[in-house]
Amino acid sequence: MKALVYRGPGNKALEERPIPELVAPTDAIVKIAKTTICGTDLHILKGDVPTCAPGRILGHEGVGTVEKTGPGVTAFQPGDHVLISCISACGKCEYCRRGMYSHCTTGGWILGNQIDGTQAEQVRIPHADTSLYRIPTEADEEALVMLSDILPTGFECGVLNGKVQPGATVAIVGAGPIGLATLLTAQFYSPAELIMIDLDPNRLQVARRFGATATVDPSNGKAAEQVMQLTGGRGVDTAIEAVGIPATFLLCEDIVAPGGTIANIGVHGVKVDLHLERLWSQNITITTRLVDTVTTPMLLKVVQSGKIDPRLLITHRFKLDDILDAYETFERAASTQALKVIIEGFGSHPG
Amino acid sequence: MKALVYRGPGNKALEERPIPELVAPTDAIVKIAKTTICGTDLHILKGDVPTCAPGRILGHEGVGTVEKTGPGVTAFQPGDHVLISCISACGKCEYCRRGMYSHCTTGGWILGNQIDGTQAEQVRIPHADTSLYRIPTEADEEALVMLSDILPTGFECGVLNGKVQPGATVAIVGAGPIGLATLLTAQFYSPAELIMIDLDPNRLQVARRFGATATVDPSNGKAAEQVMQLTGGRGVDTAIEAVGIPATFLLCEDIVAPGGTIANIGVHGVKVDLHLERLWSQNITITTRLVDTVTTPMLLKVVQSGKIDPRLLITHRFKLDDILDAYETFERAASTQALKVIIEGFGSHPG
Amino acid sequence: MKALVYRGPGNKALEERPIPELVAPTDAIVKIAKTTICGTDLHILKGDVPTCAPGRILGHEGVGTVEKTGPGVTAFQPGDHVLISCISACGKCEYCRRGMYSHCTTGGWILGNQIDGTQAEQVRIPHADTSLYRIPTEADEEALVMLSDILPTGFECGVLNGKVQPGATVAIVGAGPIGLATLLTAQFYSPAELIMIDLDPNRLQVARRFGATATVDPSNGKAAEQVMQLTGGRGVDTAIEAVGIPATFLLCEDIVAPGGTIANIGVHGVKVDLHLERLWSQNITITTRLVDTVTTPMLLKVVQSGKIDPRLLITHRFKLDDILDAYETFERAASTQALKVIIEGFGSHPG
Amino acid sequence: MKALVYRGPGNKALEERPIPELVAPTDAIVKIAKTTICGTDLHILKGDVPTCAPGRILGHEGVGTVEKTGPGVTAFQPGDHVLISCISACGKCEYCRRGMYSHCTTGGWILGNQIDGTQAEQVRIPHADTSLYRIPTEADEEALVMLSDILPTGFECGVLNGKVQPGATVAIVGAGPIGLATLLTAQFYSPAELIMIDLDPNRLQVARRFGATATVDPSNGKAAEQVMQLTGGRGVDTAIEAVGIPATFLLCEDIVAPGGTIANIGVHGVKVDLHLERLWSQNITITTRLVDTVTTPMLLKVVQSGKIDPRLLITHRFKLDDILDAYETFERAASTQALKVIIEGFGSHPG
Repeated sequence: MKALVYRGPGNKALEERPIPELVAPTDAIVKIAKTTICGTDLHILKGDVPTCAPGRILGHEGVGTVEKTGPGVTAFQPGDHVLISCISACGKCEYCRRGMYSHCTTGGWILGNQIDGTQAEQVRIPHADTSLYRIPTEADEEALVMLSDILPTGFECGVLNGKVQPGATVAIVGAGPIGLATLLTAQFYSPAELIMIDLDPNRLQVARRFGATATVDPSNGKAAEQVMQLTGGRGVDTAIEAVGIPATFLLCEDIVAPGGTIANIGVHGVKVDLHLERLWSQNITITTRLVDTVTTPMLLKVVQSGKIDPRLLITHRFKLDDILDAYETFERAASTQALKVIIEGFGSHPG
Repeated sequence: MKALVYRGPGNKALEERPIPELVAPTDAIVKIAKTTICGTDLHILKGDVPTCAPGRILGHEGVGTVEKTGPGVTAFQPGDHVLISCISACGKCEYCRRGMYSHCTTGGWILGNQIDGTQAEQVRIPHADTSLYRIPTEADEEALVMLSDILPTGFECGVLNGKVQPGATVAIVGAGPIGLATLLTAQFYSPAELIMIDLDPNRLQVARRFGATATVDPSNGKAAEQVMQLTGGRGVDTAIEAVGIPATFLLCEDIVAPGGTIANIGVHGVKVDLHLERLWSQNITITTRLVDTVTTPMLLKVVQSGKIDPRLLITHRFKLDDILDAYETFERAASTQALKVIIEGFGSHPG
Repeated sequence: MKALVYRGPGNKALEERPIPELVAPTDAIVKIAKTTICGTDLHILKGDVPTCAPGRILGHEGVGTVEKTGPGVTAFQPGDHVLISCISACGKCEYCRRGMYSHCTTGGWILGNQIDGTQAEQVRIPHADTSLYRIPTEADEEALVMLSDILPTGFECGVLNGKVQPGATVAIVGAGPIGLATLLTAQFYSPAELIMIDLDPNRLQVARRFGATATVDPSNGKAAEQVMQLTGGRGVDTAIEAVGIPATFLLCEDIVAPGGTIANIGVHGVKVDLHLERLWSQNITITTRLVDTVTTPMLLKVVQSGKIDPRLLITHRFKLDDILDAYETFERAASTQALKVIIEGFGSHPG
Repeated sequence: MKALVYRGPGNKALEERPIPELVAPTDAIVKIAKTTICGTDLHILKGDVPTCAPGRILGHEGVGTVEKTGPGVTAFQPGDHVLISCISACGKCEYCRRGMYSHCTTGGWILGNQIDGTQAEQVRIPHADTSLYRIPTEADEEALVMLSDILPTGFECGVLNGKVQPGATVAIVGAGPIGLATLLTAQFYSPAELIMIDLDPNRLQVARRFGATATVDPSNGKAAEQVMQLTGGRGVDTAIEAVGIPATFLLCEDIVAPGGTIANIGVHGVKVDLHLERLWSQNITITTRLVDTVTTPMLLKVVQSGKIDPRLLITHRFKLDDILDAYETFERAASTQALKVIIEGFGSHPG
């Protein structure tokens, strides 16, 4: 089959690889209908993710059709239309029982990282019963690919951890795909103000279309002042970091109101300064989280009820054969205005 | 009347001052029966608290008897036996309504800081109805002085923010009076492990007597390794910082388990390094808080039910006339083994 | 001044009464701009509310302008544009500190019940600092009258107590003004299904316009079956009782899913059967609540952000001189299709 | 092997039965070391549990040693020392993912009810990975049998659902084994008052020894008055029903304070009167729950840390051969003063 393979820092290739086989009795093989590219895939390609060895098929998002199941799989059978979670969860370990699937002792984020991933014709999914989600036969596959990673990440790490509430004031630092997914899901809780902060004017425009009540361009170095003005000098109840660099985290420290929360989503490569000499008395909360995808069933219901349209995040579409073009489009987002790119495989459900 | 007055960095004096008068209709004047000295008083004396001007009477803890009340005070009258909260709260502003008395727009920590305090024969208490607590006539005044600040601080900033739960593993970094108050109140929630970390062997011994299940001396630079060993390599569910310097906060970052909480109590003078390059994916929570004293009614009930004996924290007793000796004893805690020192005034309730 | 006075069961009159005076230092006098009639006013007129004595001016909702303030009032001054809460709260007692203003030991629901109310030219508001809410000069007075009682009641007793969550399935039994206010505020949390149950086809039609995803007419005695069908045999996560009779509460018992919540809003006159022989093992929660109006500040923000338009609830408008007509219109809601009727006083803010 | 078999209403027999076999790949066979008798076993014997057919081996509690495991079991292997949960949980279904194991679509309370149980030499445990708990080799088997059902039931249905908090006032109606298990586990949260209500003076005496701060004998019909006196006329924050009849539930309605919670544990056979005409405005919460045993890992940690000694509940010990005597002792608790009786099997761990 065709698969996009990581060949070491800076290198990737669309290669021919054998069809994956069942290994453990709880495995399933899924034929990919639609997949996509994540910012984390780019991190791997830069060589920033040491757990991902050269030779690995990339990708941890996707929708498809079950092809085979091991004898221990009871919830799925061949032909089922499924959403693949970016997090594999055994459902048995101490972390899984606490709903912290991200730290499953035999799972977590392993797809397209420690085991072969979804940017291929087929993929092996371990712990299938607790890592796949049944979707309706006729479900919109493109929309649901957004539920593999980006929507639960924005929702769990940003919105839930940030305790977004009706009437609240929320700032999201970073209007990339994750920041925008956070913006969409924050609206489940009806905040009064949703301030979006990004350097890219196109993304700010998208943000306004997606429901931001105000946008701030930090290029003049005065983002914090502007947010304070927008909030009557009070700061925001929730500041969500969706970039992953010290400057954006510091901005969150500068704009969070007393009693507020900083919810970190960004993948950070270096430490940041935490100004406890100022914040120790401010009754704030800071949270970090690798997405657990425990809210996938809830998100499926919300999407199916039409409360949000995840397809808003999709800007480009490619065939699996053209996945290298897809990567190029996604990597050069500033000029292509790409958000999420859909890669079409061969496993679309007939239903 | 006699009062201990801050005379600028490094200076203090026991002076004669006029008896305080009612200023606002919601004020009360309280005759001090017992007061104490807080680590924050030492911070002021070092010149670290710019809001506190020379000439200020120090002290924000105390128990006494109401002497006078303004016409707007409805909950208290002269003769009432009362506990003074270290936090003054109007009960009306947006922060007070959210239970964040520490950020009351006309109160907060002002006693012995922005207005004259309790290390005197009498003190003026603003917002008396919501800043004093009625105590039984025959209540143990020494025990209840511990409820002005130190017990609610340990409980709210450390135990509640740290989400201490039955069966949990908790480490408290710092076994000074605040760390020990945290240790006492953490036991309200029956954690399975309570690890106490401090350089002072006497304080570790006290900690064991107060209920610590293990103690760690970090002087060999291996505190984190020892905590990891004590927890089977897992780390602690709750790490409570009760010192206020970068090294102790970093230790908390090193020992917190995935999914755990770092609850900061310490008053920090400089920024700390937050290792997000490691912690971004660890699903942790970090909290800061200036005590709100919203749990004072609950703590009064727990103390009165005999669940804890706050007098365990008291090591020395002085008359108000000898308050300079009390300061010296408290400042040289390493040699005097002082925890909390009681200063006896003249306002003990006759009951 | 003119005032609508309760003259004993079945009797009311528009009378001339003296302008109210300040009694306690914490009182304010408010000139009424807009008020409305509540279902509870009808209960009083039937003689069902023994705490309300003949001679009482009715009404506990309203928006107006502060006319006078007592010397203990610090947050308001004459000329301020204000919303009147149906619940008076001292902000000091144990219940107020816990946010349970409904049980304030010197307040609670006393307006238009134990003290004279708002269906008059002016009204005395006790505990003004914590019972009035400042609103913008130019605020829409009609919309905000809905925040005196009906919106916080639906939101606190129905939506918050019912733990409505994104993706959840909610049924509201009763599509009168309170049920519809609940329907509007439930959408702050983006439930996937909102099933509205009522006998009145007009109200069901209004409910669909207000966001109900399905409606059920229980007149055929099969409401429970229909709800079970709509939910795939599972029942609802939240069943909200907004009528106040045994039959509607029983319907909630019949449709709540395992793990779900029954949130009671209705004012009940008789006991109901609780089928514990079936429900003991169903992990359900039942809540009751007299509105506390603790969410008024949050609701003001949400309304001002445009998330909901409370004016949707208003069907008729009258002058204070015609308040007897207003009552007749409101009482004969089945034929007049009245929801909330606005009574216009003389205190509209000039701003 | 020997097994205690339900032979229809009023009948039971110690019979010879074949050793159980693995059926599903996720099954384990456990050799019973210690088991016990539950009040529910008596309900079955009265014919009150229609899901339990004659011929069924009774018992849903036990500690033992794993004898065999199916190929789908990954967390256990023969020889492991294990605690058996009274609730079987697949870990995969919607209810299990929400932590509501009691409603597992292929599990729940099936042991000794819909499938053969633990009052035998060996037992088949379905969904072994998520229904057994590893215990230390040298663990006290008698103590841990109390964690199969009675301690998690008291803790989850009574203490957690009842939101017991430090400083709170709690009443437990019923001082049988479940009520006493609730009393023990309520102390994890340091309530100030723990009032125990029961007709049996011996059980009230046991309750005082277990930590009750007051006891009430309701035989004079004045239990509610007495509780109101004990609480200064206020009522209790938490009223826990641990009997299962209308009179005891009504008592809970009479003594719960405004804002309080009634947590039902009792298995009810008939409906009860819910006095909503009085309670609608009292801001109370009523909860029901079939134990989920989600807190078993937490309880294991608390027991191992020595916070409580579950053996306090054990009054009698029998060999499996004498299980009929054990039943008689347990059934005649009033005269034998039996609480929990231990039945010793043959599967004690050699460790």
